[in-house]
Amino acid sequence: MLKIYDLDTARQTILRRIPPQLSTYPSAVLESTERIFGPGTTPPHSVATILASIREEGDAALKRWSQTLDKVHLDVFNVPTEELAAAYNSLPDSLSQALNASASRVRAFHECQPIPSWETQALGGILGQRFTPIEHVGVYVPGGTAPLPSSLLMSVIPAQVAGVRQIAVCTPPNPNPLILAAARLCNVDRVYQIGGAQAIGAMAFGTQTIPQVDKIVGAGNLFVTLAKQQVYGIVGLDGLAGPTETMVIADEDANPQWVAADLLAQAEHDILAKAILLTPDDSLARRVQVAVAQQVENLSRADIIAQSLPQLGGIILTPDLKSAAAIANEYAPEHLCLSVAQPWNLAQEIKNAGGIFYGENSFEVLGDYIAGPSHVMPTGGTARFASPLNVLDFVKLSSIIALDKSTTENLSPIAAQIAQAEMLTAHAAAAEIREA
Amino acid sequence: MLKIYDLDTARQTILRRIPPQLSTYPSAVLESTERIFGPGTTPPHSVATILASIREEGDAALKRWSQTLDKVHLDVFNVPTEELAAAYNSLPDSLSQALNASASRVRAFHECQPIPSWETQALGGILGQRFTPIEHVGVYVPGGTAPLPSSLLMSVIPAQVAGVRQIAVCTPPNPNPLILAAARLCNVDRVYQIGGAQAIGAMAFGTQTIPQVDKIVGAGNLFVTLAKQQVYGIVGLDGLAGPTETMVIADEDANPQWVAADLLAQAEHDILAKAILLTPDDSLARRVQVAVAQQVENLSRADIIAQSLPQLGGIILTPDLKSAAAIANEYAPEHLCLSVAQPWNLAQEIKNAGGIFYGENSFEVLGDYIAGPSHVMPTGGTARFASPLNVLDFVKLSSIIALDKSTTENLSPIAAQIAQAEMLTAHAAAAEIREA
Repeated sequence: MLKIYDLDTARQTILRRIPPQLSTYPSAVLESTERIFGPGTTPPHSVATILASIREEGDAALKRWSQTLDKVHLDVFNVPTEELAAAYNSLPDSLSQALNASASRVRAFHECQPIPSWETQALGGILGQRFTPIEHVGVYVPGGTAPLPSSLLMSVIPAQVAGVRQIAVCTPPNPNPLILAAARLCNVDRVYQIGGAQAIGAMAFGTQTIPQVDKIVGAGNLFVTLAKQQVYGIVGLDGLAGPTETMVIADEDANPQWVAADLLAQAEHDILAKAILLTPDDSLARRVQVAVAQQVENLSRADIIAQSLPQLGGIILTPDLKSAAAIANEYAPEHLCLSVAQPWNLAQEIKNAGGIFYGENSFEVLGDYIAGPSHVMPTGGTARFASPLNVLDFVKLSSIIALDKSTTENLSPIAAQIAQAEMLTAHAAAAEIREA
Repeated sequence: MLKIYDLDTARQTILRRIPPQLSTYPSAVLESTERIFGPGTTPPHSVATILASIREEGDAALKRWSQTLDKVHLDVFNVPTEELAAAYNSLPDSLSQALNASASRVRAFHECQPIPSWETQALGGILGQRFTPIEHVGVYVPGGTAPLPSSLLMSVIPAQVAGVRQIAVCTPPNPNPLILAAARLCNVDRVYQIGGAQAIGAMAFGTQTIPQVDKIVGAGNLFVTLAKQQVYGIVGLDGLAGPTETMVIADEDANPQWVAADLLAQAEHDILAKAILLTPDDSLARRVQVAVAQQVENLSRADIIAQSLPQLGGIILTPDLKSAAAIANEYAPEHLCLSVAQPWNLAQEIKNAGGIFYGENSFEVLGDYIAGPSHVMPTGGTARFASPLNVLDFVKLSSIIALDKSTTENLSPIAAQIAQAEMLTAHAAAAEIREA
């Protein structure tokens, strides 16, 4: 089920990255899009249609799309707070404790993150940067085959720690009670049962009942992602999420059963999930292969794994650990697990990864639920430039310019000089009028 | 030239914001797009065509578009380093000194900005966030009627301070010598004379001669902005820039001549630039009105001002300073100038603004050139969620998860519990196998 690749073959197959925007759409998606929106309509066009209608008609369009796309008639979108409380109160005690433990560690972790406002008087007067919370944030929480209350915690809590005052959650109709319970646990009381592109449109433009937000975070399906791209710049975004992925670097000391379990956990997410092992140890590679084949038998989502793991996952034999690290930097995985004897040494080599898991004790599933950092991490190689969701995603800075009089007098002629060179004479005049 | 509005009228006119993506295209733009790309082609479609051709054909497509769109035949895109040096050496001494003074203050300012990596041992083992520089950054510097070497300094220097090793600059063909000189001053030696959407495509996808980058920053015209939106997620972006804007809040102590000069400096940028004064003082409003009419007579870009200022600018009478601050927060201006007696008090009320200029000594033009913070600031109301360009735009963080053994033992059952609730049994198994 898990093939072993040499590096050259791997580069031409499982290590190749094609950004979602440049991928072809699955034929089932194309067909259903054309069926609903008419012949020749592509997914981005259908999303543009949805967004435009929401901007123009608001709630009426939301109701229509919920009927057409989700087959649900909705009179109200808001989930009553009593329903949130009921969902929370119905949790088995052990699960309630587990979710609360998760929420407190995630909160404690993000409360450690510095919000680095600063000022200096070294440049004449006072200059600096002042961070303030974003006021309105929308969180999208997908439904789907495995609804994830953990994703709600991992998105909402960093926003709350940042000081965001207004948080709205959108999740598809007939929401899973666990998601409602998680909302209640975080004291979020504005939960709307709207899914897909229409949810993104509602939060970006606002409707009669759904508040307009300043920034939208959270992963979703293809249509959610396309909608996010189309509203980029109208609202802020956390990024565009693709399928989840884990890369494991292991040496001869790694426990093959544990490595196999970590790869399988990744592969069960969906049929596009990617689980890749890099190791210089041929013997470990073969033992992991065997362990995967054994363990998968007992797993409820073996059918999903049977699609994702053989096609998108694999074991890559590398000359040494250093070259494995170099491959990881090129690939820029969402999760990078260093299942090696000396993880801190190897981590020195790592530049591009969303989350770095040091040693086999820090296995990836702990990061999904309870370690502390948000599990919303950059996918698809975007860790080259993007970060896991964190407190800084929910603040923005203002530059502070408060020069003293003598500094202004010194700098004004310099500003005028450059303005003249740029042929902006009104700029120069604004400087010169101060000198007069 | 500068109308006085009451608040209600202003809300329906100059304070209304329409995101660029939702605006209609000027008819001249639509006509030239159809002329080049065929009937019915909209600007976004033309941009998609350009991007796809560059992704498929690389340099050949770049040459073709430079010929078609810029009427320039290019054999090589790279501006030779000798040409950069020559441009720098040809600067008049006073201008060279001014640009160097600007560069050193911008560098000194950004060197003060903390890069807030951190670790904690309070949650069992070591958890934290580690910031690393982005490796490859592309900077777009527009040409146009007033080429801005200052924009190059204001984009490149924060990236250099962040530790970015590879910086490429794209600027339209036959680049202005001042832009080349600024590149040389910053020790950037990879400058390409490629403009428009094709420059964004070249940097996003890479070509035979132009390196692929991880993140693109810098403002440009409509086509640059559309191209940035289309490659969002393939590369990181600083945001989508719209027309520049300044909001001034002034009280009775403000100097009407200075306020007028600041508004005119803003209005000369382009015909879409916005310069708005908020004041509770009717007498100041009228004196600023007069001063603007007088000062504009001497300005070389009076024709641009004559279009931008009467239509998009204006003076708004507010009940008091506090309500002026509230309007500023709603509007979220790129630049906010507090030309009041007590700017530090008023600044307490401000949440949404790119740059805040405290008092009349800290006038906006100083921020354009020499104060220290980057003059690349969020426009169009995006200051609700976005920041001026700063060092954090050029780094990304990795979450560090290095739990100790006893913490792992404590947390594993909790992770398994939540995984079971989410019906992710391979996740649960990866936790349970550690307990065995």
